[in-house]
Amino acid sequence: MKKIINDPNMVVQDMLKGMVAANTATIKQLPETTVIARCDAPTINKVGLVSGGGSGHEPAHAGYVGKGMLDAAVAGEVFTSPTPDQVLEAIKAVDGGAGVFLVIKNYTGDVLNFEMASELAEAEGIRVEHVIVNDDVAVEDSSFTTGRRGIAGTIFVHKIAGAKAEQGAALDEVKSVAERVVANVRSMGMALTPCTVPAAGKPSFELKENEMEIGIGIHGESGIERKEISTADEIASELVNKILEDGIHENGDEVAVMINGLGSTPEMELYVVNSKVNETLIEKGIHVYKTFVGEYMTALEMAGFSVTLLKLDDELKSLLDFGSEAPAFRV
Amino acid sequence: MKKIINDPNMVVQDMLKGMVAANTATIKQLPETTVIARCDAPTINKVGLVSGGGSGHEPAHAGYVGKGMLDAAVAGEVFTSPTPDQVLEAIKAVDGGAGVFLVIKNYTGDVLNFEMASELAEAEGIRVEHVIVNDDVAVEDSSFTTGRRGIAGTIFVHKIAGAKAEQGAALDEVKSVAERVVANVRSMGMALTPCTVPAAGKPSFELKENEMEIGIGIHGESGIERKEISTADEIASELVNKILEDGIHENGDEVAVMINGLGSTPEMELYVVNSKVNETLIEKGIHVYKTFVGEYMTALEMAGFSVTLLKLDDELKSLLDFGSEAPAFRV
Repeated sequence: MKKIINDPNMVVQDMLKGMVAANTATIKQLPETTVIARCDAPTINKVGLVSGGGSGHEPAHAGYVGKGMLDAAVAGEVFTSPTPDQVLEAIKAVDGGAGVFLVIKNYTGDVLNFEMASELAEAEGIRVEHVIVNDDVAVEDSSFTTGRRGIAGTIFVHKIAGAKAEQGAALDEVKSVAERVVANVRSMGMALTPCTVPAAGKPSFELKENEMEIGIGIHGESGIERKEISTADEIASELVNKILEDGIHENGDEVAVMINGLGSTPEMELYVVNSKVNETLIEKGIHVYKTFVGEYMTALEMAGFSVTLLKLDDELKSLLDFGSEAPAFRV
Repeated sequence: MKKIINDPNMVVQDMLKGMVAANTATIKQLPETTVIARCDAPTINKVGLVSGGGSGHEPAHAGYVGKGMLDAAVAGEVFTSPTPDQVLEAIKAVDGGAGVFLVIKNYTGDVLNFEMASELAEAEGIRVEHVIVNDDVAVEDSSFTTGRRGIAGTIFVHKIAGAKAEQGAALDEVKSVAERVVANVRSMGMALTPCTVPAAGKPSFELKENEMEIGIGIHGESGIERKEISTADEIASELVNKILEDGIHENGDEVAVMINGLGSTPEMELYVVNSKVNETLIEKGIHVYKTFVGEYMTALEMAGFSVTLLKLDDELKSLLDFGSEAPAFRV
């Protein structure tokens, strides 16, 4: 295992210290927790927005803490859901009296732990609502999930729900727009190489030198097919077509596109992919409103990428364009 | 070679198409060139700012094209200097009558080709000045360079000279502030793994499973020492101390810090490094004004990182904080 770390068991704490050191003016770590929150949290009368999940997906989720996006992010151990008590601390820290909204990726552990925290918070008199993101069209169930997995489309939920909350919307309005994003967003990924969880010390799966896996999850969960590597154009077309087959995005629609690197894919390759994704969408009569290319939801040093399409309407466009001071998604 | 590309010989053209498709509102590719320029270039009476170099360092340099930073970026083949005629096209495209300023990384090919383009442009009546960035303290000469190499510190030159030009400064003022950044910026890197140039098909060097190289360049040029991997804290301290030994940054100074991932280092590890860099600087009485953690100047899929320290004064701080719409460096 080649990693730039100290103790594999301290990697999340070391990372959080480094994040706060890099952003002292804007974020804080809640004492004795793995929660990163805005320095000025809670914002009185604003809905507090909380997300989180296992670590190893950076910049998700702490990179999205900032004005216009999340109020707090809860970090679990690498690829492991944060515990309910950690989520509860985040909820309490961002409650400014208007309630708290949770953005949960659809993994069994995350859903259980965030929902339990939600109940504990409500017992303390805090109103909590949530949405479960399940944008990955690759498989219906997986080793970590009942139903579809939540992957890079989650970032659009943070962005749009975050803008709505920042504009002063009530908890049910934030929930309603977040649900619309979840209904309109679809993603699919592929990988060339696995990744290694520091505490495990070896890759969680193997791919041969000429192999790729289509539809893989952000923890290396199985996809649809393991096969010989093809060209960037062929891979891009296959992913876009699988997403379009889901029937949400059609001729005449306007979409936001995200080409998300999983960790060690050069940005050069992500742009090569985007060229073909863009061409394919134009051919289908789908208008690209905005494109985001980069690392938004990673899987440690996995090589590969995902494509996300979000169908837009006027309100979603305006919320997508609204200002954000989160380090990983500045608008 | 596991890469998401089409034809290895078309990878730069495919990438540039994908970049333009992702940023149609803000950038354009000059016809039949590898030059990316702002859509609205030239800006009348503003100094035009041009940088560039070999591809494979994305987001450098096209990701820094935007209001407040570069007016154009010239892309060579992977790890290969762009030709003088390409640089000349960029200069001509951004000349708004106030002259053009070139930011050149110190590699023999880049220096020769940018200077030749500069002479050709002057023969056509365009005033051109330049600065050569040589921030890498690791080695004095290398396989590609006479003198020190230009690496991630270049991004601070783009940012600060770009802000100065955007504020309407004259060519000699832009040059003067760029020279001050070059005088004040120092960097050093390390790598855990090599990278593979697509057209070559195999890694340019080898590192054993337990080895790292300290002081390596962004094309894999030799560093100071190849040795057993140590902890993130030890590596971070070693790099910071080597930079400080250069004698530019001292007790009482204020600095901007960049922890730059070389391509496949998880952001988690960059933050672990930043934690120790920050601690080391505090111990030395050096105040951290701002920290940038991410991939700014990469080497394809090389694993590793560099640390950059820029000594600041009031003007440099204000220019660093000035607005930028470049996709890879939004302020």
